[in-house]
Amino acid sequence: MNTLKNDRYLRALLCQPVDITPVWMMRQAGRYLPEYKATRAKAGDFMSLCKNAELACEVTLQPLRRYALDAAILFSDILTIPDAMGLGLHFEINDGPRFSSTINSLSDVKKLALFDPEVELYYVMDTVRAIRRELKGTVPLIGFAGSPWTLATYMVEGGSSKVFSKIKKMMYVEPATLHLLLDKLADSVILYLNAQIKAGAQSVMVFDTWGGVLTSRDYREFSLYYMHKIVDGLVRENDARQVPVTLFTKGGGQWLEAMVSTGCDALGLDWVTDISDARRRVGDKVALQGNMDPSMLYATPERISQEVEAILAGFGYGEGHVCNLGHGIHQDVPPANAGVFVEVVHTQSAKYHYQGLDVIYNLALSAK
Amino acid sequence: MNTLKNDRYLRALLCQPVDITPVWMMRQAGRYLPEYKATRAKAGDFMSLCKNAELACEVTLQPLRRYALDAAILFSDILTIPDAMGLGLHFEINDGPRFSSTINSLSDVKKLALFDPEVELYYVMDTVRAIRRELKGTVPLIGFAGSPWTLATYMVEGGSSKVFSKIKKMMYVEPATLHLLLDKLADSVILYLNAQIKAGAQSVMVFDTWGGVLTSRDYREFSLYYMHKIVDGLVRENDARQVPVTLFTKGGGQWLEAMVSTGCDALGLDWVTDISDARRRVGDKVALQGNMDPSMLYATPERISQEVEAILAGFGYGEGHVCNLGHGIHQDVPPANAGVFVEVVHTQSAKYHYQGLDVIYNLALSAK
Repeated sequence: MNTLKNDRYLRALLCQPVDITPVWMMRQAGRYLPEYKATRAKAGDFMSLCKNAELACEVTLQPLRRYALDAAILFSDILTIPDAMGLGLHFEINDGPRFSSTINSLSDVKKLALFDPEVELYYVMDTVRAIRRELKGTVPLIGFAGSPWTLATYMVEGGSSKVFSKIKKMMYVEPATLHLLLDKLADSVILYLNAQIKAGAQSVMVFDTWGGVLTSRDYREFSLYYMHKIVDGLVRENDARQVPVTLFTKGGGQWLEAMVSTGCDALGLDWVTDISDARRRVGDKVALQGNMDPSMLYATPERISQEVEAILAGFGYGEGHVCNLGHGIHQDVPPANAGVFVEVVHTQSAKYHYQGLDVIYNLALSAK
Repeated sequence: MNTLKNDRYLRALLCQPVDITPVWMMRQAGRYLPEYKATRAKAGDFMSLCKNAELACEVTLQPLRRYALDAAILFSDILTIPDAMGLGLHFEINDGPRFSSTINSLSDVKKLALFDPEVELYYVMDTVRAIRRELKGTVPLIGFAGSPWTLATYMVEGGSSKVFSKIKKMMYVEPATLHLLLDKLADSVILYLNAQIKAGAQSVMVFDTWGGVLTSRDYREFSLYYMHKIVDGLVRENDARQVPVTLFTKGGGQWLEAMVSTGCDALGLDWVTDISDARRRVGDKVALQGNMDPSMLYATPERISQEVEAILAGFGYGEGHVCNLGHGIHQDVPPANAGVFVEVVHTQSAKYHYQGLDVIYNLALSAK
């Protein structure tokens, strides 16, 4: 068992006491960093970078060298699962992800086979192991997967979509076909996340990027149900510690109460949801992660600092907050502004946490 | 004063008794109708159609010939206002609206002049008058405008956007510049909607298509405040009847209580918001419009009918519901499915309204 030097992130997700609010940024390894661009250029295209464990580990660690982040997140893509199922993922320049094959019918779904994460997705597991080795117990590593609904949108639409007409048609006209697809995806995500945990991920997050395009009824039936199945199927222990599970539905701010019923440990909030409202609604049951508008990183340090204070004050005094952006960091923000964000979360959040016990606890630890 | 033969829509917006739930569809005049495409081809491009009062009137009326809609809505575009302010609107094929000039600075905003709707936007007012004449009092006519925030996004970004980086940068770095722009736009919308009302619009709706990309705090300061100013500045009477005002913020389902405080009569709901939740939260203060997912029109008649019933039952018994889609109708839905939607709202909604008094009232009217 590795001793984790900084476990604020894991503690906050379990609503345990911390000295200051932990912080990380969704897509913290990415195109806004010049060193990322250099490594990606070395790898070739995006998928070659994902499939190269050494370079994927390198880009995972890059933001941690710049900023005092409280967690690392595996560098990968949510679409590795449909790729492993044989759909042929590739990225077209400026046009996002595309699949060579798409899912159009029940027979397409029936043909999809489950995979062995250590075989078809060995490169992800190798990356997880490499990151854990390189992190040397400084901060925990987050693993992740896309939600079944979100993965299905790409598999049925063949790529990104605005209107989601194909998958919604399937949802209305052939709901049993879609349910079979979602069930296979839920099983795949369980296999995949459990393999990440076994390889070393100390916390996992499920990204439901497109749950927010559904009605409240359809969200429960076609997205939340399968996230519930995932939460239920995860082996939630690593290094003799609980592996906290975070669910994030972009645009799902109205459904927080329903999301909590999955038994997850934390909810990710997009920036549209007011974090004080969210805490009032579900803060006694789960931790909350978020939720600064990623566009705020276009602003001045003073304005960023003001916004961080509004979010910290919005959550208020006490435990169960992991600070983050409300969505992935934009590729054209100045890296220095990301640094301001991370720094002010740390410097401004001490007043929202009781210091007495932690100070004593830390003194005791350092005396060991 | 014209007698309105079917005033269900106006009555429902004021929470007055109706026999059945009124229904119309956002973008009910549009590309899903072959007759629209034919008229548009005659006009040339999209703006030429908007600027031709005779043809714009014709496309406004087309859906009413097919379906038993309870309201007509002016055929126009929300971007006529920035065009009238001199930004040079044009539509690029498959690329949405573009402006020749954009707003980048305080001096750009200062240069923007208010306009006389009967001069710069005479073609809209001519269209309103033509529609009222042609409707012959069958159903009410809805006028509309974009919200100041939504208009500003196009004016600052230069067209459609996904990330809204330019306007958000302005919001964070030069909030006073953006406030001046929004204030001018609010004044413009007031002038414009009052002119539409004077020309014959019997109800008006403000479309805040992009309010949902803001944080809760920014929404109140940069979008809702100016919609409040608009509601406050409208002359809400036409033909000796109250002109109801509907506000619609796409993605704003978490802010319904705040929206009600503007003094509007009704809120438009997107399909992500559960209409029963919305009624419980604000249904004693305003009417609610919505909210079937427009993608449901890809489904079978049976599934559409089932969804309509879920929405009618969700709102429940009593007054204050105008049925609609949760956003504009998609251009590739079968027109027959739109017909199913309209028909089943009417046939399935009688049980949610008390019939006694209305039956007597209608008998008395028909006996006149």
